[in-house]
Amino acid sequence: MTTTIIRTNYKTAIARLDAIRSLKIFEYLVIAVIIISALAIGANTHDIPPSVISILEALNVFITVFFAIEIAIRMLVTPRFKDFFKSGWNVFDTIIVAGSLIPIDDNEMVLLARLLRIFRVMRLISFIPELRMLVGALLKAIPRMGYIVLLMFVIFYMYAAVGSMFFNTINPVLWGDISISMLTLFRIVTFEDWTDIMYETMVVYGLSWIYYLSFIFLAGFVFLNMMIGVVIDVFSKEHNQHSRDSGEGEAYQVDQIYIRMPEIEKKLDNIIKSLGK
Amino acid sequence: MTTTIIRTNYKTAIARLDAIRSLKIFEYLVIAVIIISALAIGANTHDIPPSVISILEALNVFITVFFAIEIAIRMLVTPRFKDFFKSGWNVFDTIIVAGSLIPIDDNEMVLLARLLRIFRVMRLISFIPELRMLVGALLKAIPRMGYIVLLMFVIFYMYAAVGSMFFNTINPVLWGDISISMLTLFRIVTFEDWTDIMYETMVVYGLSWIYYLSFIFLAGFVFLNMMIGVVIDVFSKEHNQHSRDSGEGEAYQVDQIYIRMPEIEKKLDNIIKSLGK
Amino acid sequence: MTTTIIRTNYKTAIARLDAIRSLKIFEYLVIAVIIISALAIGANTHDIPPSVISILEALNVFITVFFAIEIAIRMLVTPRFKDFFKSGWNVFDTIIVAGSLIPIDDNEMVLLARLLRIFRVMRLISFIPELRMLVGALLKAIPRMGYIVLLMFVIFYMYAAVGSMFFNTINPVLWGDISISMLTLFRIVTFEDWTDIMYETMVVYGLSWIYYLSFIFLAGFVFLNMMIGVVIDVFSKEHNQHSRDSGEGEAYQVDQIYIRMPEIEKKLDNIIKSLGK
Amino acid sequence: MTTTIIRTNYKTAIARLDAIRSLKIFEYLVIAVIIISALAIGANTHDIPPSVISILEALNVFITVFFAIEIAIRMLVTPRFKDFFKSGWNVFDTIIVAGSLIPIDDNEMVLLARLLRIFRVMRLISFIPELRMLVGALLKAIPRMGYIVLLMFVIFYMYAAVGSMFFNTINPVLWGDISISMLTLFRIVTFEDWTDIMYETMVVYGLSWIYYLSFIFLAGFVFLNMMIGVVIDVFSKEHNQHSRDSGEGEAYQVDQIYIRMPEIEKKLDNIIKSLGK
Repeated sequence: MTTTIIRTNYKTAIARLDAIRSLKIFEYLVIAVIIISALAIGANTHDIPPSVISILEALNVFITVFFAIEIAIRMLVTPRFKDFFKSGWNVFDTIIVAGSLIPIDDNEMVLLARLLRIFRVMRLISFIPELRMLVGALLKAIPRMGYIVLLMFVIFYMYAAVGSMFFNTINPVLWGDISISMLTLFRIVTFEDWTDIMYETMVVYGLSWIYYLSFIFLAGFVFLNMMIGVVIDVFSKEHNQHSRDSGEGEAYQVDQIYIRMPEIEKKLDNIIKSLGK
Repeated sequence: MTTTIIRTNYKTAIARLDAIRSLKIFEYLVIAVIIISALAIGANTHDIPPSVISILEALNVFITVFFAIEIAIRMLVTPRFKDFFKSGWNVFDTIIVAGSLIPIDDNEMVLLARLLRIFRVMRLISFIPELRMLVGALLKAIPRMGYIVLLMFVIFYMYAAVGSMFFNTINPVLWGDISISMLTLFRIVTFEDWTDIMYETMVVYGLSWIYYLSFIFLAGFVFLNMMIGVVIDVFSKEHNQHSRDSGEGEAYQVDQIYIRMPEIEKKLDNIIKSLGK
Repeated sequence: MTTTIIRTNYKTAIARLDAIRSLKIFEYLVIAVIIISALAIGANTHDIPPSVISILEALNVFITVFFAIEIAIRMLVTPRFKDFFKSGWNVFDTIIVAGSLIPIDDNEMVLLARLLRIFRVMRLISFIPELRMLVGALLKAIPRMGYIVLLMFVIFYMYAAVGSMFFNTINPVLWGDISISMLTLFRIVTFEDWTDIMYETMVVYGLSWIYYLSFIFLAGFVFLNMMIGVVIDVFSKEHNQHSRDSGEGEAYQVDQIYIRMPEIEKKLDNIIKSLGK
Repeated sequence: MTTTIIRTNYKTAIARLDAIRSLKIFEYLVIAVIIISALAIGANTHDIPPSVISILEALNVFITVFFAIEIAIRMLVTPRFKDFFKSGWNVFDTIIVAGSLIPIDDNEMVLLARLLRIFRVMRLISFIPELRMLVGALLKAIPRMGYIVLLMFVIFYMYAAVGSMFFNTINPVLWGDISISMLTLFRIVTFEDWTDIMYETMVVYGLSWIYYLSFIFLAGFVFLNMMIGVVIDVFSKEHNQHSRDSGEGEAYQVDQIYIRMPEIEKKLDNIIKSLGK
């Protein structure tokens, strides 16, 4: 008897929690708390009197508790507990919230705690559906870039090896070893004071401008390909999808014509059959 | 009797004003006055003898009066007074003209008056229909960018928080608080002397290049997506619209095929029906 | 009698000239002379012994005479003399060649003569058909940009007016008058040491970063629109044209379907008519 | 008898080698050796104790032998020896491997040997099919750019000639002769401290900003055209090809409609014929 009552009570409680969670005002409250937590982080970077620090500390405790409760509610209203962690965004939220719940004493750990607090700002992305979709679209574009990044890395690695082999003695700060050289090459690709680097080596190797110009063209060309190609691909797919969904635009019209085509042919076949009779 | 005469006179006057306003020469006159007002602003920034200053001052009075008359004519010829302010461009013009009519004595206010005079150059945009359309198209693209700007802001905010937390003691001029750090990050994204900033922090934190490179990739990637995506979207829509209006190009042809499709099917149905008889 | 012979001789001579002009080897010769003239210009910029200078001087006389003969041949073989100047490229060639024929003594004029010699390199563009087409396509894109350039100019002008009004006293070298300010703004748009300019004015006007950031966004956004929009437009038109000409690709297929559509409808109407009988 | 046995043994051996070569584990082994060889190159750029140097030397011998064996296997399993060199990638591999087999004593030659070792990293590109395809696609885009590069070169050459003619005396380090001037112009196009160069010449020639601005617009515009045009072309072709192959998207649908069109017309003709009877 009692267990049935408890179960019923539990069910009613869950239903109530779900109702609260679905309220528009609850959503705004969560967004407000995220923004407050972001502002608190910003305030922390300014020189602030001790009284404000203690307020911020209290605020931090409140935000931590609030997020813990919010995520607990979301967990409880999920029909099956396992399903909750099927969404990558839920896992992401849980890690951030759980991380800030661990009590920290060590001095080194304080830095980690502050970093975790900063990551809480990212909850804005996981909470607003439009931002979640946007990030999802950007993430979807990444695997496509895998091989181009590898190609890019091979180019950088080879040029860095050549650079640190020849220019090592000229300027060890820029060309000391292969990793420093790769950083220098990235600097060259952003055109940041790259001519100073070139003029320095041209004193010793008069033809070293070939090295720099060929690298800029090669890396720039491959990089531009990668970036523009992926961006256009992502956008044109999204664009066509949108066109089909909204029932407007060329992609939708071609789609409709394509679908109707077999029907027209079937009708023609029917006419031919009835004439043959 | 007299009121009828007055009303008739009024109507004739309005009709005459409208005729004047529609004259091609009146349009050129307005554009000429706008350009003269722009040149006067330019002249003001040079060191000029007092005699020229008084001429410019007289010119300014003339331009102010001319613009006031021009806008009054446009108001009067609008059939219903309310409709005049339905156009955002009319509101824009009225504010600029009204602003320059307010008599100013205070020294502080002189700056504002000069600013208002500069804004008068923007009347070139509101007066030439092609520029008005162009600005309208650019403005239409802005709302689409809303969420991407928000995402961008979250990235900047988080990196600025991390930056001012770690690098604050190294260079407070660049990383003093979160707002200064955001300005520094914007500078890094434009590649302006960004390696100097990086080398400075790498002395203390050897791995801080990860911070800079990840930020450049992330911000650059999202930014490029935003810009190119929106630009291409705006242009492809305009392009297809133009294709349909001019009756040329692929978008027009697909449109025509799409429109004819149901008619063909109807004809086929008619044939099937008449055969069935 | 004699006039007939002369006329016949003249005709034969013209036919022979035309035959020479059409020879592949003559074309290569002209290209070779253009390249030699370019190399001579390049050699002139190095420190060269007097003996080489006299050789270059002799070479210059030869090139001038050669080009004069070449253009004379092209004029003579044109059936009607008037038609020769209908092509903009021919006018361009004639001006360059005629310019280098004028004897020059004045010292000031020597500079002009050397400039004209440099312009002779552009004859490579007017001589190779593919380059002529390419430049033609680029020129075609320019009028489309007219209004966007005007909009850009308005933005630059207004920001320059505001800049020279507020920052004039801070750094007259950069913000002295409206034209210097416009050059400074162009520098800012290329991100060249723009933060130094900003930091300098932020000492006096703490909020002047708004001026710079808003300008970068506005000018960059409009500029990007202009550039990418025009480039994509030119390329997509060329691309579709190529697709239709070569009988391959989507644009060609849609074109074909569009052309066949009315014929199908006519056939259907015929069937309906013959059934109605 | 013996020759038959030998031939049979040989055939069995080849079949075995082919089986080995096709093993997934053999592929991973080759990739692993390439990566090890890359890491060895990277290690060489650091200051390393003599013991490690001898290990790296031994490693180098092992890699050289391994690559020689690998390429020998690939040659042997090719049915006809001639076909092996028909693939550009095989020629590329053979040159790199053969080059590292030549024994080197001369000091000058050591540099070449080290360069060859660096080129071995490029075997990663020739070994992974996806990278091979990617590089192939990039190479295919190059010929299309030929004439645009020529146009670009003409612009650079002419501006360099004008630059070294006028600015030679102002700063011979930047404008000494035509080749140095071209390098300076490339620097200007990357916006690297270009205003310093401009301000320097504006002291003597007040209007020289026209030279710089016109060059930036011209070179930037042509360059942007070239880059974006080629990239979009390559990607849109690849995209449409992919759409047709996968049987999805607009290009596939238009293709299908285009193919069915004649069949529909034939059916209509059949109906008309059977009605005419």
